[in-house]
Amino acid sequence: ELVAGLTTLFPARSLAGEHVVLTAGPTREAIDPVRYISNRSSGRMGFALAAAAARAGARVTLVSGPVALPTPPGVERVDVESAAQMHDAVMARIADCTIFIACAAVADYRVATPADAKIKKNDADMALALVRNPDILADVAGGAQAPFTVGFAAETNDMQANAEGKRRRKGLDMIAANWVGRPGSGFDAEDNALEVSWDGGSVALGPSPKTRLAEALLEVVEQRLRDKQSQEKA
Amino acid sequence: ELVAGLTTLFPARSLAGEHVVLTAGPTREAIDPVRYISNRSSGRMGFALAAAAARAGARVTLVSGPVALPTPPGVERVDVESAAQMHDAVMARIADCTIFIACAAVADYRVATPADAKIKKNDADMALALVRNPDILADVAGGAQAPFTVGFAAETNDMQANAEGKRRRKGLDMIAANWVGRPGSGFDAEDNALEVSWDGGSVALGPSPKTRLAEALLEVVEQRLRDKQSQEKA
Repeated sequence: ELVAGLTTLFPARSLAGEHVVLTAGPTREAIDPVRYISNRSSGRMGFALAAAAARAGARVTLVSGPVALPTPPGVERVDVESAAQMHDAVMARIADCTIFIACAAVADYRVATPADAKIKKNDADMALALVRNPDILADVAGGAQAPFTVGFAAETNDMQANAEGKRRRKGLDMIAANWVGRPGSGFDAEDNALEVSWDGGSVALGPSPKTRLAEALLEVVEQRLRDKQSQEKA
Repeated sequence: ELVAGLTTLFPARSLAGEHVVLTAGPTREAIDPVRYISNRSSGRMGFALAAAAARAGARVTLVSGPVALPTPPGVERVDVESAAQMHDAVMARIADCTIFIACAAVADYRVATPADAKIKKNDADMALALVRNPDILADVAGGAQAPFTVGFAAETNDMQANAEGKRRRKGLDMIAANWVGRPGSGFDAEDNALEVSWDGGSVALGPSPKTRLAEALLEVVEQRLRDKQSQEKA
């Protein structure tokens, strides 16, 4: 139904009055002071979305894992490392948030008991016990006055079924799915393509540069947000 | 016995005729296409050493894990990701190497069976089975015509005892130890300090910027290399 995501220019100031909170980049889960578990994520898509939201007039808070990227102009940045820290930083800033976009590649598991000192290796194999991290997206979407909540799904197989399942399970307003591990898309690539879906519709965006893709996605977000608001009024 | 590491200028062209092979940065061990285990390492110390060795006239090969650093002028760079790839890249280039400096933070363990597709999380905790990676330093130092071999030891406690134990156990010519997890030293810091030891001596270098520290360490390496060569002739 919506086909023009990449053909129109995202109007200036169209997000004025909104408070957009985004997460970006990977998280790091300490094994010991030297070793950690992480996810492949350059942070570029989340930083491009934060920059585009600020250009569109929104107040923007960007909660970022460890990345090598400069803070976009007009964006308030909060640096975190672990998924638990990211969860706390988001929940502390979500009260007046109207749009939440979870772009970070958050570690689903953390190490059960990180070591205080560097673990000395020995010749034996070892097993690392992992426990589940808090679910930032589900906690935001399940809140009493939840913002318009957008999730990302990085998939290596069955992309649309996996992404739509994630959207329904977590009660999200929208999900943006992309392939990873394929040339020209996903982390570390400059270009990306997204399959964006919501309750009752979907649109394919890109492939295009992440800065342009960010504007196109925000335009879709803004249209669905206005639809949701007018439905709530009716 | 040697006290002047930081007080003299490293002579130009003093490493002419040498082939210096270095490793730098972290390695990444895949859990699945999205998740991995890694080590905290910016690669800065290794890249500073490679740059200093090239300025001193050496032929320089830099085997680097994933870092966000430009290749120093005059340095041949080989990018790798896992410890096994780094091991293979080093062993393939070690035949005519005269000085090997292992600055990388190599993962001691890799995941026993990495998944081909993204592992779907569930509510249960999990355990990750790990197996030992090949030991690059020990394999280089134990070779038939081993180069002058320098290891690094990043320690959080008992630094000197741990480092000297590593030097003897692996049969290294020299080891450079540094504290990690303390302000102003180790990974991500611009400055660093090293405790350098060999069979029969030691010297403390820094704290100083990593570029200056790299020159000081190479000067110590060159002095010990010439000593070793004259002992072998005698």
